[in-house]
Amino acid sequence: MQKQMVDVLLLHGTLVTMDSTRQVIEDGALAIGGEHIVAVGSSADLAARFTAQQTLDCNGCAVIPGLINAHTHAPMTLLRGLADDLRLDVWLYGYMMPVEREFVGADFCRVGTWLACAEMIRSGVTTFCDMYYYEDEIAQAAAQAGMRAICAQTILKFPSPDATSYEESLAYCREFIGRWRGHPLIVPAVGPHAAYTATPDMLRAAASLAVEQDVPLHIHISETALEVEDSRTRYKMSVVAWLKQQGVLEAKVIAAHCVHLEDEEMDMLKQGRVGVAHCPSSNLKLASGVARVQRMVDLGLHVGIGTDGTASNNDLDMFEETRLAALLAKGCFGSPTALPAATAFALATIEGARAVHLADITGSLEVGKRADVAVVELEHTHQLPRFQRESEAIYSQLVYASKSSDVRDVIVNGQLLMRNRELLTLDEAALHTEAASFARRIDSFLIAREGNPLSKLLAIGTGVIPQETFEIQAKVRLDCADDVVAKLDQPWLTVTRSSRRNQYDTYFIFPEGVRIRYREDELVAPDDSLQNAFYTITLTGPTHEREYDNSVVLSRSRYAAPADHSLRFYREYFKPNQELQVVKQRRRFHVFYQDTDFVINVDQVRLGGQDGCYLEIKSRTWSARDAERKAGLIGEILDRLGTSRDARLKVEYVDLVTEAAATHSRPR
Amino acid sequence: MQKQMVDVLLLHGTLVTMDSTRQVIEDGALAIGGEHIVAVGSSADLAARFTAQQTLDCNGCAVIPGLINAHTHAPMTLLRGLADDLRLDVWLYGYMMPVEREFVGADFCRVGTWLACAEMIRSGVTTFCDMYYYEDEIAQAAAQAGMRAICAQTILKFPSPDATSYEESLAYCREFIGRWRGHPLIVPAVGPHAAYTATPDMLRAAASLAVEQDVPLHIHISETALEVEDSRTRYKMSVVAWLKQQGVLEAKVIAAHCVHLEDEEMDMLKQGRVGVAHCPSSNLKLASGVARVQRMVDLGLHVGIGTDGTASNNDLDMFEETRLAALLAKGCFGSPTALPAATAFALATIEGARAVHLADITGSLEVGKRADVAVVELEHTHQLPRFQRESEAIYSQLVYASKSSDVRDVIVNGQLLMRNRELLTLDEAALHTEAASFARRIDSFLIAREGNPLSKLLAIGTGVIPQETFEIQAKVRLDCADDVVAKLDQPWLTVTRSSRRNQYDTYFIFPEGVRIRYREDELVAPDDSLQNAFYTITLTGPTHEREYDNSVVLSRSRYAAPADHSLRFYREYFKPNQELQVVKQRRRFHVFYQDTDFVINVDQVRLGGQDGCYLEIKSRTWSARDAERKAGLIGEILDRLGTSRDARLKVEYVDLVTEAAATHSRPR
Repeated sequence: MQKQMVDVLLLHGTLVTMDSTRQVIEDGALAIGGEHIVAVGSSADLAARFTAQQTLDCNGCAVIPGLINAHTHAPMTLLRGLADDLRLDVWLYGYMMPVEREFVGADFCRVGTWLACAEMIRSGVTTFCDMYYYEDEIAQAAAQAGMRAICAQTILKFPSPDATSYEESLAYCREFIGRWRGHPLIVPAVGPHAAYTATPDMLRAAASLAVEQDVPLHIHISETALEVEDSRTRYKMSVVAWLKQQGVLEAKVIAAHCVHLEDEEMDMLKQGRVGVAHCPSSNLKLASGVARVQRMVDLGLHVGIGTDGTASNNDLDMFEETRLAALLAKGCFGSPTALPAATAFALATIEGARAVHLADITGSLEVGKRADVAVVELEHTHQLPRFQRESEAIYSQLVYASKSSDVRDVIVNGQLLMRNRELLTLDEAALHTEAASFARRIDSFLIAREGNPLSKLLAIGTGVIPQETFEIQAKVRLDCADDVVAKLDQPWLTVTRSSRRNQYDTYFIFPEGVRIRYREDELVAPDDSLQNAFYTITLTGPTHEREYDNSVVLSRSRYAAPADHSLRFYREYFKPNQELQVVKQRRRFHVFYQDTDFVINVDQVRLGGQDGCYLEIKSRTWSARDAERKAGLIGEILDRLGTSRDARLKVEYVDLVTEAAATHSRPR
Repeated sequence: MQKQMVDVLLLHGTLVTMDSTRQVIEDGALAIGGEHIVAVGSSADLAARFTAQQTLDCNGCAVIPGLINAHTHAPMTLLRGLADDLRLDVWLYGYMMPVEREFVGADFCRVGTWLACAEMIRSGVTTFCDMYYYEDEIAQAAAQAGMRAICAQTILKFPSPDATSYEESLAYCREFIGRWRGHPLIVPAVGPHAAYTATPDMLRAAASLAVEQDVPLHIHISETALEVEDSRTRYKMSVVAWLKQQGVLEAKVIAAHCVHLEDEEMDMLKQGRVGVAHCPSSNLKLASGVARVQRMVDLGLHVGIGTDGTASNNDLDMFEETRLAALLAKGCFGSPTALPAATAFALATIEGARAVHLADITGSLEVGKRADVAVVELEHTHQLPRFQRESEAIYSQLVYASKSSDVRDVIVNGQLLMRNRELLTLDEAALHTEAASFARRIDSFLIAREGNPLSKLLAIGTGVIPQETFEIQAKVRLDCADDVVAKLDQPWLTVTRSSRRNQYDTYFIFPEGVRIRYREDELVAPDDSLQNAFYTITLTGPTHEREYDNSVVLSRSRYAAPADHSLRFYREYFKPNQELQVVKQRRRFHVFYQDTDFVINVDQVRLGGQDGCYLEIKSRTWSARDAERKAGLIGEILDRLGTSRDARLKVEYVDLVTEAAATHSRPR
């Protein structure tokens, strides 16, 4: 009998097919013709039937379906280790987004994707499901590397590195889908980032685009408890229910994370045939929690495993993720029989393929499917001995004892991408150089910023207003018993408006006179109830002073913005050298004296050691002559109010704290 | 200037010293003379001062203190993957202990330890803290491999593979300590296994031995919630408090696991200068839980990281453990800043050394310490790019992005054990062969046992009593309304004693007529209250029957034992083909008829479909003639009690269920 010629023949491996009967074939073989698997069976059988261009001896190895990385952001591989062990908000708003705004472009996405592909191929991954910006670049890079990828173009309700609006992203996405439709490796997809970064309109448009074009929709769902809480508060419903209301579940959805789902949400996902991408490392590292994977599996949801981006992992190692998924399902829910090795391995392969809606072509070793295969060595010290009395044992060996470094060969769509640990489609050395160059530039950007609180403020700030200010001010210490407010009722002084406030000021002190003030400014109503509270963050540069008789003129650069984040966030983000508190009850009077505007503050101040009552007079000024005139007027007001000349001070409240603290720390 | 000659010089690495200032030296160098580190500094400095027998260029690598595996059972490496995804009791009593009883000896311990050493050296471990049987063999094997090891001889209150009593283990341990005292690599130690496997006397003796000999005491503490609960129930105090009461905390304790500790227990450990060995993989895999490591660190406890034995891990990879420790501390306790990379790395090195009471000689790269060093490559794709703006970044790269496969060289006590990934003290290929031979024998042992429920029963059973039984019995279906019990009050029938019982029988059905019955036998008092309950497990072999007119003689092999474990345990352990329930309320009468003993049971039985009331007459028999005579007597009794001949049955209750089930499952 004439032997049939095929392209690749893998012989003598332990074939872990992941077909519907979970067939494991010892001394098994696989024949590949073109893009497809043409035969699966015993080595004896296939060696008799086929001859091949290339034969791989897989003795001592497992031949497995290539692993499916169900959720990642490939280009972020360039940000591996950029900023770790931080809170999600500091990490995201303080590092990821500023760096992305500065660096993410076509080049970044291409190099980052190649670096990710190199790592993933090395760890036996043949398909990845991506979501990022410039997704067309990512698709190109993945295709050039020879990897299978679902590429979802990110869509956000606010401007992103590749679009100024979501309409722009949608238009880009539509065009992108058209360009890649029918590609043998690339599946284009729509990627509305998450419920909390979308408007209802945006989600509806994204879902219709996905439905109309029949492409997957990739989205983050219920990653954090906060997201769930916000949805309950804002929409009075769960995240999944709200997404369903926007029509999202009409599409072929791939839902990343799903850490905090109610059972009824899981049911909705099941009914919507949503695939879930479980990301255990990332969910732990960012302290999002641990998803109830066994429950989802029990409900019949298709769950895959994803690494998420390296910035929150910090690698793309599906062996690590799969092992972790199996361990967490047991240890965090008290059941040592949860997610056994065979199930965990299914999540990384055939169930992962189902989750990303590609099970018709990949995820198992079956005739007719695309040839997406990894060869994993089984005879390293850390994997031995091998027990063989149960066919299940191979899953245990793969999931609990094997590592990405055991992967020897990788084939995608019939093409060898790695042979004997050598990458055949990527120039790794060149990639390392390019990655190093990005890292150097990002380091420099951050060093410049880290050394400069202003750059850090600008990096996160929306609506930072820079102002160069010149201000004349004077301050007098009062006897608290003295009723200064009553004294302001003078015929020579016109009060135009007044207010009462509780001000909680936290100062971050940096070298060279730079300070950041975080202010909670509570407005107190006449009936003593609290009205609005305003949060502002203000950076002031070194102060240049000129003294007058009673007053001082301060000139300094000043940047103010609404404080969108918490004090805790700013503290962890700015890492100040020192932190000081000034708390005051302020009565503020806008007054008019001698045709000139002043502000008079009567403050009861807690400074730690220097508590007391103070009167402060301030005015903006623009010239030396104007300052001199106002200094004179301030002196007059202070005299006419009967304040003691000895009690006059020329410093700011925070300087009083500093001095006190300095005094305390100085040895005597 | 004459250069000083040293043995080994490591140049051009990133030196991660883990000294008290956490100094990281770029382009750093380390000089080793004999067993010790003689210099640490810049490459320029050391290259100028020293010349060496052997120079290692560590460009592109981190030079780190060798990792400390703070808890393992090295020889169990031979049991890797033997039995996974099982409950702790099934795993321990069903697999580990039976296999250990059968296989653990000097050979097993030697080969297992070498295999473990090979794996640990490959992953950068230089010191391990062991607890097992035949610890002298382990110490010898570790010393031959060149590794540093704390070797704790296991002491148990029940017989173990190497001792028939704890006194014997203690005597062995004392001798063992004497033999290894002062060895440059081996620290002998006392290993009372755990509070729940010890008697107070045993613990006191173990603690005094450790104190007297000034060696560490290695023990498992609070691994599972059950252990904690049992201690509270039995001793009315926490595990640590009870151990303290037995004097255990007087010794230099190394406490493995510590998963479920109250704050006050942590304080006691702190005061007792106890080192903790955190074992995250094992605690997850066996669903023991997640230890509060950040809390322990905050309290100033010295915490190290351990892999535990491979049987519950399934590897000895300290890179994996350290990463997992860092991730779990965040994800399971809601704080992304918990156990940052630098802290996690400290646990694996200097803090681990403190935890095992060896920080004076290992755990950091400092002049005067023993030269325990690992060289870790940093330039693999999965580790790149490398950010360098913060010296902390190296810890992030080591903990989150590096793998055991990145370890290139390992030095212990000044001796190179691995150079360019080649092991210099162990013959890996020979070890693989020996390990495979053990695996084959263990597989055969288990296959024989798995195919044979009797072997499985004997493997776990203490007190299994084998009996060959011959029994004659007859059964009649009654009208439940019929008061048979009243009818037993006959002048021709003497009731010697009687009882009432609720019997819940679960039958596991195996091929070839083998059955296991798990019986809960509740004794009911005359006032209807429940008295004692007895749990028995009984295996019966295939039954050989001989029929008589009204009766049947059953002969079969029978093995009975008290059932120490739960029904759930036996179900998971025996994995029966089928499971059937028989629940009955039984009135049992021991009677005397015609000088012959019989038992009459009047049973109300729930069988699923065949519920009903039955009368059963039974007697033991020894010969065909005796059986014939008793069959006649049984017929007489049945007739005199007025039971219907048509209602007579010759089967057992469980067979009625089987038939009903078979009828149900048969298509009509």
